[in-house]
Amino acid sequence: MIQTDICIIGAGPVGLFAVFEAGLLKMRCHLIDALPEVGGQLSEIYPQKPIYDIPGAPGIIAGDLVKNLMIQIEEFKPGFTLGERVEVISKQDDGSYIVSTNEDIHVHCQVVVIAAGLGSFEPRKPAVENLEYFEGKGVHYIVKRPELFRDKRVVLAGGGDSALDWTIFLAGVAEKVTLVHRGETFRGAPDSGSKVFELAESGKIDLVLQSQVSALAGNGVLKEVSLLDNNKITRTIQADHFIPLFGLSPKLGPIADWNLGIDKSAVVVDTLDYATNVERIYAIGDINTYPGKLKLILCGFHEAAIMMQSAFKYVYPDQKLSFKYTTVNGVNPF
Amino acid sequence: MIQTDICIIGAGPVGLFAVFEAGLLKMRCHLIDALPEVGGQLSEIYPQKPIYDIPGAPGIIAGDLVKNLMIQIEEFKPGFTLGERVEVISKQDDGSYIVSTNEDIHVHCQVVVIAAGLGSFEPRKPAVENLEYFEGKGVHYIVKRPELFRDKRVVLAGGGDSALDWTIFLAGVAEKVTLVHRGETFRGAPDSGSKVFELAESGKIDLVLQSQVSALAGNGVLKEVSLLDNNKITRTIQADHFIPLFGLSPKLGPIADWNLGIDKSAVVVDTLDYATNVERIYAIGDINTYPGKLKLILCGFHEAAIMMQSAFKYVYPDQKLSFKYTTVNGVNPF
Ligand SMILES: Cc1cc2nc3c(=O)[nH]c(=O)nc-3n(C[C@H](O)[C@H](O)[C@H](O)COP(=O)(O)OP(=O)(O)OC[C@H]3O[C@@H](n4cnc5c(N)ncnc54)[C@H](O)[C@@H]3O)c2cc1C
Ligand SMILES: Cc1cc2nc3c(=O)[nH]c(=O)nc-3n(C[C@H](O)[C@H](O)[C@H](O)COP(=O)(O)OP(=O)(O)OC[C@H]3O[C@@H](n4cnc5c(N)ncnc54)[C@H](O)[C@@H]3O)c2cc1C
Repeated sequence: MIQTDICIIGAGPVGLFAVFEAGLLKMRCHLIDALPEVGGQLSEIYPQKPIYDIPGAPGIIAGDLVKNLMIQIEEFKPGFTLGERVEVISKQDDGSYIVSTNEDIHVHCQVVVIAAGLGSFEPRKPAVENLEYFEGKGVHYIVKRPELFRDKRVVLAGGGDSALDWTIFLAGVAEKVTLVHRGETFRGAPDSGSKVFELAESGKIDLVLQSQVSALAGNGVLKEVSLLDNNKITRTIQADHFIPLFGLSPKLGPIADWNLGIDKSAVVVDTLDYATNVERIYAIGDINTYPGKLKLILCGFHEAAIMMQSAFKYVYPDQKLSFKYTTVNGVNPF
Repeated sequence: MIQTDICIIGAGPVGLFAVFEAGLLKMRCHLIDALPEVGGQLSEIYPQKPIYDIPGAPGIIAGDLVKNLMIQIEEFKPGFTLGERVEVISKQDDGSYIVSTNEDIHVHCQVVVIAAGLGSFEPRKPAVENLEYFEGKGVHYIVKRPELFRDKRVVLAGGGDSALDWTIFLAGVAEKVTLVHRGETFRGAPDSGSKVFELAESGKIDLVLQSQVSALAGNGVLKEVSLLDNNKITRTIQADHFIPLFGLSPKLGPIADWNLGIDKSAVVVDTLDYATNVERIYAIGDINTYPGKLKLILCGFHEAAIMMQSAFKYVYPDQKLSFKYTTVNGVNPF
């Protein structure tokens, strides 16, 4: 069981900055995100694009904003559980919460902050026979620990950047890598595409174009992957792992089951302190809604600052909050 | 008469960023500030100090934040009236406003945004006989146009940075510069202090220490300045201008007379859109108050973004507002 003051669901820009505002008030944070990386939409959807409306940082590249936020919160040593989705939050008798993920990580905390953006990024699943049956038994939608694939036979599917990047990376790790792609050209970065063609020509990977994975088979664990080509001819190859990489799309998911006020897939909050209708649970950033809400990063930053002032009473019930300027008092690390 | 869509009273960080949010919605702004420079408290009180809680810009120097904000809004070509205080706002029959300064500059606008921080920075006035009588007739509390002092005899008083900096600067402009200071050492930057001592030694300025200005005299305009030393001996020197520089302190000033809801020297707003109780007048940043208000720069940024969405209906009554991401749509300059 991980112990912390505040458990933040979602490590997008708003969840990250919330760590800083908590830290100024001497509250510790643990963040959980379904993605293997921090940064939320900025990392998943537009890491290389400039954002123009971050105050004082015109045109900052999304990925750089995420990096700067990580530097800003470093001193407060947040904990991270990445690549796992929060499934359940359960209230304890003393008012505190235990937050649990799909991989059975449990975080005990006084306050829960939902900074879940558009929801947790869930993989787009291709239509493949037996796909869900082999989840956790050979099928993976994200690559969390590349070492899992060392000296294994791995089949990847997709034509975007993730499929290309992981094909190139795993070529040096796995025993055998096969990349299956419907088209003849790739959507991903041209130089990654060239690299994949080179690896195929030099025999370091198998590249199967104009084809798709149609079925999986095995005996408790994955053993075989069936490929169907454009001429409707099927062939079967041996494989220990299948990694379909067709992008991620956000889903509200389990948050809908937590008895929170929900309006159009967003969590209703009071702008006084961005609290939800459930005591000790707050919602900030894109996930929340209130009259006049703007889904902007800079608005989430404000919500985080206000929210942490309110959460203080649950973490330090006997202390009076005193407001101080960082310029005057500095940032005092844990 | 200056014509604009939105007149912003106060060019602190929040007033500046408001120009950007207005610009995204194709609304033009004119800013008025009592200080001769933009940046509000950041420029006046702590230009060289690092601010730690600007999201994504940890430890940014206050002066650099102001510079970055100026770069960010440049494309939207805001107008500036600096070194003048807004005294009166008067409603027109069509609902628009005329905003007028103490130096008779008039701005006609559809919406007034009060981003006045702690109020307008007013000079701390030393106890000098006839001081107020000679205001505008030789007495100046800020230096707006240094050319005014070319080939004139100028007496400055004070021991801080402004007094030192302007003494050094005017030494090359005025016919004669006298700096009067109560103490024997200066509070301002050590290298500026050394520079002033050098100028005095080389006869380029007159430095009168352990003394203060006690009285002014003249015939309609300033002619004579009396100096009193620690031994209570008075002497009189000829002067065209007297510039006492004892710092500035913020005062709510005329804003208190505009029929706005006021609570503890701040303007009461509705967090729905940061509107005041008077239609078409908004208040953002340190000047406003609402339950849970934090006087933080990052909060003012959020308030500016929300507020401009609401102001849009007064500037473009026939158009529907459409919300767009800067990353997707870019920033379209005027
Ligand atoms: C193309 C595009 C351009 C944009 N341009 C701009 C712009 O110019 N300016 C601007 O201000 N905004 C812009 N935005 C919006 C901006 O990206 C969002 O406002 C911002 O990402 C919200 O941050 P957040 O931290 O609230 O949520 P997110 O960034 O969405 O992060 C939420 C995180 O929570 C995780 N999560 C959700 N549920 C769970 C769960 N149950 N368990 C574990 N993890 C979970 C998700 O995986 C995700 O990583 C743009 C968005 C897009 C898509
Ligand atoms: C020492 C110190 C340290 C601080 N540290 C931090 C920090 O670490 N983080 C943080 O977020 N904040 C900090 N602050 C607070 C921060 O400076 C303010 O929140 C910020 O300046 C508010 O910006 P603003 O634009 O609302 O107002 P201001 O910066 O106060 O600017 C308002 C402007 O309006 C002008 N004005 C007012 N009335 C009139 C009028 N009638 N006519 C013309 N002009 C007028 C004033 O002259 C002034 O220039 C600190 C403040 C101080 C003093």
